[in-house]
Amino acid sequence: MRIAIDAMGGDNAPEATVEGGLAAAAEWKDTEIVLVGDQGRIEPLLKGKQLPSNLTLRHASEVIDAEDEPVRAVRRKKDSSMVVAGRMVKEQEAHAMISAGNTGALMTTGLLVVGRMEGIERPALAPMIPTLDDLGVLALDLGANMDAKPEHLAQYAQMGSLYRQKVHNIAEPRVGLLNVGTEAGKGNELTKLAYPLLEQLPIRFVGNVEARDVLTGNCDVLVCDGFAGNILLKAMEGTAGAIFSLLKEQFTKSLKTKLAAAMLMPELRGLKNKLDYTEHGGAPLLGLSGLVVKSHGSADANAVKNAVRQARIALQNRLVESISKEISGK
Amino acid sequence: MRIAIDAMGGDNAPEATVEGGLAAAAEWKDTEIVLVGDQGRIEPLLKGKQLPSNLTLRHASEVIDAEDEPVRAVRRKKDSSMVVAGRMVKEQEAHAMISAGNTGALMTTGLLVVGRMEGIERPALAPMIPTLDDLGVLALDLGANMDAKPEHLAQYAQMGSLYRQKVHNIAEPRVGLLNVGTEAGKGNELTKLAYPLLEQLPIRFVGNVEARDVLTGNCDVLVCDGFAGNILLKAMEGTAGAIFSLLKEQFTKSLKTKLAAAMLMPELRGLKNKLDYTEHGGAPLLGLSGLVVKSHGSADANAVKNAVRQARIALQNRLVESISKEISGK
Repeated sequence: MRIAIDAMGGDNAPEATVEGGLAAAAEWKDTEIVLVGDQGRIEPLLKGKQLPSNLTLRHASEVIDAEDEPVRAVRRKKDSSMVVAGRMVKEQEAHAMISAGNTGALMTTGLLVVGRMEGIERPALAPMIPTLDDLGVLALDLGANMDAKPEHLAQYAQMGSLYRQKVHNIAEPRVGLLNVGTEAGKGNELTKLAYPLLEQLPIRFVGNVEARDVLTGNCDVLVCDGFAGNILLKAMEGTAGAIFSLLKEQFTKSLKTKLAAAMLMPELRGLKNKLDYTEHGGAPLLGLSGLVVKSHGSADANAVKNAVRQARIALQNRLVESISKEISGK
Repeated sequence: MRIAIDAMGGDNAPEATVEGGLAAAAEWKDTEIVLVGDQGRIEPLLKGKQLPSNLTLRHASEVIDAEDEPVRAVRRKKDSSMVVAGRMVKEQEAHAMISAGNTGALMTTGLLVVGRMEGIERPALAPMIPTLDDLGVLALDLGANMDAKPEHLAQYAQMGSLYRQKVHNIAEPRVGLLNVGTEAGKGNELTKLAYPLLEQLPIRFVGNVEARDVLTGNCDVLVCDGFAGNILLKAMEGTAGAIFSLLKEQFTKSLKTKLAAAMLMPELRGLKNKLDYTEHGGAPLLGLSGLVVKSHGSADANAVKNAVRQARIALQNRLVESISKEISGK
């Protein structure tokens, strides 16, 4: 299989993407890694290194930046590393692409370059949200579409369930609907209409899940519209971040608290890592005709390599084909 | 002025409501407190006490429980303490009512018994969310209406701004719109349409506010639909709660961590109180033709007294009349 890496995407590109690509190529000999990006910047990073035969470089002259307006950037920068990688997937030159670049631009590349899967109305971005049991929950949609119809939520549920089966090897993933109460009749118009649709799907629907229970890991897939999902994730991130800074502030107030805090440091660090929103691997864009994985903007070489691992498992288990079969019956 | 207390509402009723009512009557001689509820249960609690002359009892034979279905309960239990208190406000026998009872039933009492203010399409529940600077932010709507139109959000903004002016004495409250990004074009259909409406209002609109920034207290009023508001509040509550239980678990792992944690206990407790969602007073139901304040279900006597304090300030500063004037121009 062949996996294209947008070598210019992310805060640490191209150093992290090149190093991650090299490590992936070294580990998985059956996988061709294609680094897509500016030859002039990538080649110096490869100089003097033992290049694995399954690693190649594809030149792309442009770069989409974090500040670029997504749709305009994807339309205009046709020779950007991200768009070229997307085109490789579209034209089946690559089986998957990975990018740590501009999230909006990657979703646009998915839609406009790679293309939607037949039968899918709205592709979804599906990151893992950390949970206290360390298993995490796949949440979708987390921002690809701000507004959703009940039918979209039903497709998210199917895609998310298949992803957890195929990539995380969970036989019967528990699918929950993000809502304001656990009873069936609760919610806004969207969730009230989505609930009976989810009940009819060939998935293990566990009903409504309240925002305060997401952290306890009571489902494997959390279905929500992009707006509510963003509010949920940002509220959790913001609260965790604020508490840790407050703890730090309180614990450095005096010599006494400093000493005590030093003794608790391993525990505090463990807790912080548990809730680290950057440590949970890449987020797939589900519902496209090919595999696209969004790696975190601050991804290091190890995160890039992990995204390759994730893409390999999805490809080996024919994730995209399974979703297509489930949705369109083909 | 006369304030009716639903003496049977809340987890600690009628003990806490009676004690809180007594304390309020003792402190504010210009305020008549009416305890509404079951005479047979309230009178024994008053026995042997020096009864202030500004405290009276109004018998009501029924009680709406936490488990009651709101609309049915309000329609059927016409002699419940909550409905009787609401009727007193409707018939101007009381200037305000306070209840720590079933939230859904109280909102229904507001709508069906007290009645909407002319010109208001949807009344809103407006609790304070704690912030790191201890000032808190008034968030509305937090659950009275799951679905909102842009015009509703505009009315929430006006009502919230007036409440902060009149009750909290903030000259120009900063009003923010809960959204997925700070730029003006961000959001779902609802927030995109609401944004220009908020810009045109005679309020200090500070633009979009992301969920992760709510805790930092960058606005005084946070406008959102009831669904998103619930997701926000529950996610914050759930994350804070989970972190504190994890800290507790980590800190009791060994003798060493127990000792260290004991030294940090005052700091930890301070932090926990800072983020305590029950400590921030009662939540007004804004947009009704009279003043209705929801006290927390677990309210103790002090919380009930504080709700009376809050209602007094709102009445003294003619909150309801101000909202009516602003909305309907009357």
